[in-house]
Amino acid sequence: MDELADGTAVVIDVLRATTTIVTALAAGATRVIPCVGVEEARWLAHERYRGARLGGERGGLTIEGFDFGNSPAEYMAEHIAAKTLVFTTTNGTQALRHCERAKEVLIASFLNVAAVAQQLVDRQVIHLVCAGTDGTITREDVLLAGALVVQLCELRVKDPTLNDEAELAADAWRETRRSVADGQELAYFLRQSRGGQNLAAIGHETDVTAAARVDCHPIVPRYDTVTGEIVIVAGHSVAG
Amino acid sequence: MDELADGTAVVIDVLRATTTIVTALAAGATRVIPCVGVEEARWLAHERYRGARLGGERGGLTIEGFDFGNSPAEYMAEHIAAKTLVFTTTNGTQALRHCERAKEVLIASFLNVAAVAQQLVDRQVIHLVCAGTDGTITREDVLLAGALVVQLCELRVKDPTLNDEAELAADAWRETRRSVADGQELAYFLRQSRGGQNLAAIGHETDVTAAARVDCHPIVPRYDTVTGEIVIVAGHSVAG
Repeated sequence: MDELADGTAVVIDVLRATTTIVTALAAGATRVIPCVGVEEARWLAHERYRGARLGGERGGLTIEGFDFGNSPAEYMAEHIAAKTLVFTTTNGTQALRHCERAKEVLIASFLNVAAVAQQLVDRQVIHLVCAGTDGTITREDVLLAGALVVQLCELRVKDPTLNDEAELAADAWRETRRSVADGQELAYFLRQSRGGQNLAAIGHETDVTAAARVDCHPIVPRYDTVTGEIVIVAGHSVAG
Repeated sequence: MDELADGTAVVIDVLRATTTIVTALAAGATRVIPCVGVEEARWLAHERYRGARLGGERGGLTIEGFDFGNSPAEYMAEHIAAKTLVFTTTNGTQALRHCERAKEVLIASFLNVAAVAQQLVDRQVIHLVCAGTDGTITREDVLLAGALVVQLCELRVKDPTLNDEAELAADAWRETRRSVADGQELAYFLRQSRGGQNLAAIGHETDVTAAARVDCHPIVPRYDTVTGEIVIVAGHSVAG
């Protein structure tokens, strides 16, 4: 989208694409190649990146012939370390492709929120891009956007200028963080969200718990829109 | 919009259309006739409702030949009591017309938030429709939507089922309400919003203060989509 051309885009799809991408890279995957189509994914894994692993979902479920679905738990070091992952999901990889005009594209999840906020601290123009579900806002993505806004405000000497969406997301996160400080689990809120309920409906509740592990992987993945590859640019994998 | 056909739509345009409509009715206007076009407004005031007053804005400013702009302060009883008001604005009256398929359409502002929440208490399906500005979300509208959600949750014995947007709006309102309880004025938050900044740019800051007078007019205006008229259905004007 042209409106992103002036700055850094941060792609957010908490349940589950960006959580899974962060997990795979933290587990030692060399790179993640996001793509929109299933056939494109197969071609990339068979021709361009020989020996790559195939991961992703349609309707939330693993695609026929793929090595992995879209559950973070599947991406363990023993299966993915030192491998390329070609990855396609319904909303997340489309959000990534929508950001191709941005100067820089970073990947955020609750697993790496502090690392991403730190990386953003000197950026002038930042767009937080929530993948949502089929074009609608989902609470889990907005909460993570709010967490990034709040951390950025805390890290910067001068308060950044926020638009109304960013202010609202920050408000929502501050309110949720208060409940978390009072002992309510973050996963509880993610489970209530549209994305959380969709996952429960297909038996993937445990992915919600995995997505709520705040700052367990302090890495910053960046999507290089020229090469089409996502690699770690700050922090390092458990393997490395 | 067909998605509204199953329930009650509550139209929200804090800065300023729904605030001004509530003010005009509270000051004794017999009815408000919202319309989208300026020529349509002139025809209605000159032909269909002879002697009606004309109010509204384009680009935030009073339309040539109209009696009033879109500032709540203009709608004083001495000018509007016992009169019909034909009213057209950029975003608010369009949001009203978008709700024409709903079973019932109510008009909300901070001036009558408790009265509207009370009116909604036994409704099964409720859509909170934020006018925004030119298709974008504005904070002041989402905060009022959140205030309605929070009050409804407090009034009902059984918690209503909320979608993600409603949950986020409620979070944002709870966070803002906390600052208001700590002594920050609600008008301060409305002034920071996209709508508030647009008003400041055209010298209408005082309208923001007027829009932040919570529960000063405990009336419920309803838009009858058959007759095209907005009248008070609960509470009464200062005149009546």
